[in-house]
Amino acid sequence: MIDFEYLPEVVQSSSTKIVMVVVDGLGGMKDPSVGKTELQMANLPNLDLLTTQSSCGVSVPVLPGITPGSGPGHMALFGYDPVKYLLGRGVLEGFGIGAEIGTNDVAARGNFCTLKDDGNILDRRANRIVSNQSVELVDLLNDIQVDGVNINVLPVIDYRFVLVINGPGLSPKISETDPQLIGVPIPKCFAKDEGASFTASVVNEFTDKAKKLLQKTNLGANGILLRGFSGVPNLPNFCDSYRLNAAAIASYPMYKGIAELIGMKNLGTPSNFKEEIAVLKANYDSHDFFFVHYKPADSAGEDGNFLQKVASLEEFDESLKEIIKMSPDVLVVCGDHSTPSYINSHSWHAVPFLINSKYGDAYIDAFDELSCLKGSLGRIKGEELMLLVMAHADKLTKFGP
Amino acid sequence: MIDFEYLPEVVQSSSTKIVMVVVDGLGGMKDPSVGKTELQMANLPNLDLLTTQSSCGVSVPVLPGITPGSGPGHMALFGYDPVKYLLGRGVLEGFGIGAEIGTNDVAARGNFCTLKDDGNILDRRANRIVSNQSVELVDLLNDIQVDGVNINVLPVIDYRFVLVINGPGLSPKISETDPQLIGVPIPKCFAKDEGASFTASVVNEFTDKAKKLLQKTNLGANGILLRGFSGVPNLPNFCDSYRLNAAAIASYPMYKGIAELIGMKNLGTPSNFKEEIAVLKANYDSHDFFFVHYKPADSAGEDGNFLQKVASLEEFDESLKEIIKMSPDVLVVCGDHSTPSYINSHSWHAVPFLINSKYGDAYIDAFDELSCLKGSLGRIKGEELMLLVMAHADKLTKFGP
Repeated sequence: MIDFEYLPEVVQSSSTKIVMVVVDGLGGMKDPSVGKTELQMANLPNLDLLTTQSSCGVSVPVLPGITPGSGPGHMALFGYDPVKYLLGRGVLEGFGIGAEIGTNDVAARGNFCTLKDDGNILDRRANRIVSNQSVELVDLLNDIQVDGVNINVLPVIDYRFVLVINGPGLSPKISETDPQLIGVPIPKCFAKDEGASFTASVVNEFTDKAKKLLQKTNLGANGILLRGFSGVPNLPNFCDSYRLNAAAIASYPMYKGIAELIGMKNLGTPSNFKEEIAVLKANYDSHDFFFVHYKPADSAGEDGNFLQKVASLEEFDESLKEIIKMSPDVLVVCGDHSTPSYINSHSWHAVPFLINSKYGDAYIDAFDELSCLKGSLGRIKGEELMLLVMAHADKLTKFGP
Repeated sequence: MIDFEYLPEVVQSSSTKIVMVVVDGLGGMKDPSVGKTELQMANLPNLDLLTTQSSCGVSVPVLPGITPGSGPGHMALFGYDPVKYLLGRGVLEGFGIGAEIGTNDVAARGNFCTLKDDGNILDRRANRIVSNQSVELVDLLNDIQVDGVNINVLPVIDYRFVLVINGPGLSPKISETDPQLIGVPIPKCFAKDEGASFTASVVNEFTDKAKKLLQKTNLGANGILLRGFSGVPNLPNFCDSYRLNAAAIASYPMYKGIAELIGMKNLGTPSNFKEEIAVLKANYDSHDFFFVHYKPADSAGEDGNFLQKVASLEEFDESLKEIIKMSPDVLVVCGDHSTPSYINSHSWHAVPFLINSKYGDAYIDAFDELSCLKGSLGRIKGEELMLLVMAHADKLTKFGP
């Protein structure tokens, strides 16, 4: 949670309802060949109108120049110091697929891979083996026994899986076995901390046994690569901290995982934003805070497709009408990080946001990176956003006499 | 003091004179029915002219979204971390009325109240009993004896008083006896800390004796409510920290209290801003830093009176001419927090400020929330303002070789 020790004393209950829509990879930058950012190019009548009635600004997820992953980006939006509360990939992906990960367990993200006869890595993704095949491989891995621990392997999508190691004396302070390179052997796992050598030996034994087992099959993979070893951190509960009955509506596993980890209730199993909005409608009366996640803008940005990102933003703008109709007391549109199509990956750029409420202090009339920088809230740290959202919802009282 | 350990090494004496005018509740927000903020609506020829010769910006007193009380708002302006150096209400109001509060004493803000026959609170303010009456009641309370401590009760205004408990072994870590509710009995005081049980028992004994004593009178109150138990924190001295011979000129008790607490000398007993300016003139040669407090803008904002706040700002602008004529080397106009009349209370909105000196770096030509956001100093933390003021006064030397 944000470093403000008096937060519990200033948070107050109120009858207002907050809908926070996180547009993944919302921000961009000018594509030099176009002279505009994706938001500037897009036709966004609903967002632009909202902007004229909202307090606007841009948020810096971690630090200027630092490009956040989805984890830190979202943690900051929810008011958590993204550095102090860094979440490991294993835990995040595990929670996202509903894995049970205890507070003493260690989780990792796994890839099925292909190895050449000499043991060197040929393909880190096993020729992008599809889910049908990998589910069978996961079954095989679940037969592996390692003394002193219980092993649980869960399929994610295609060549991806999650490994959860359960047992006493485990530590996530171990090195990764995915070298993120090809043409080299699978590296041995080693302990980074004194207390982690048992865990490293478990990982090495598991990896060796997996290789032997997979090599006997004809299912398209003959090795595994593990990364993102992590445990469940001790996180303040979002609902308790802000006195909210908070729900999450997301289609992708990782965002559900983050939401669950901080104590939000995941609603429904929507598979796209339209279905997410239907879930929001169906549950609108049951919660006072909704985190709704929109993914396509990030995907288009990562593909380096300027026009596709523009289209995904326009599609979002159109869908937003349905949420505006529900008239939440506070409607927030924000992003976990920027994903400029010009860079075709996450980036460090500050992310525009708007907070629409009866306290909307509107200075601008277009929703884009440059306009929002001139908004009434200027440039803030990502983790400060929730304070502003709470203030706009009449949920914070005065600090100090 | 601001978290900059090298401050003592960069502060230097110089012959320049600083006048810092704090306009209480200076900032506002757009009233949607008007489309402008109070500052934007007001006719402010002197402030606007100053702006064209000043370095301008907006200050965030505590954190974005956090609404500060007067204490944190002023502490930030004087360069103190407003969270680390949070002042209790009892101490603040006590100093403001000239109470002597030693470093081991405990002070509280008290209300005279009325209780029904069943002991439940009927009116937390005793029908807003006026000062004439409450002075008599205060005299009665001063007759109460509690073993092991000395009790001093001082009248504030109307139904308000300050209680100062003096003696060995006291601690302010006790619960309040003002439930901020009616229809319930006066809560017992209890210790929040191991070392505070004696103090809690003193408060309970005092409250019981006060009830019995007041019930014998016909002076309009038959109980007392206590809150804001606090001791005098160990604060860095403002004059020593900045090598200034600083004076405060204020009409209201709380602001005098804060000034005295950090080591400023309170000058005169002005009862309005015109008299404050006269005090400034009379003492102009004797100090090199003046904190001058203007209250009416906050009062109008708290009353939710847009036009009254506009009028109070215009009145301030007119009075400011007298200060400009004195030609201080550095003239600062700033605010402890915003008080938008639309919200009719303190708010979280950033507060415009200007620093006029020969180093004025002017980018804008109007003094309001939006313009100042575009000023050369942008958006700063409130506690950073003093550094900028000192820099504009040639009172800071280079940091590091």
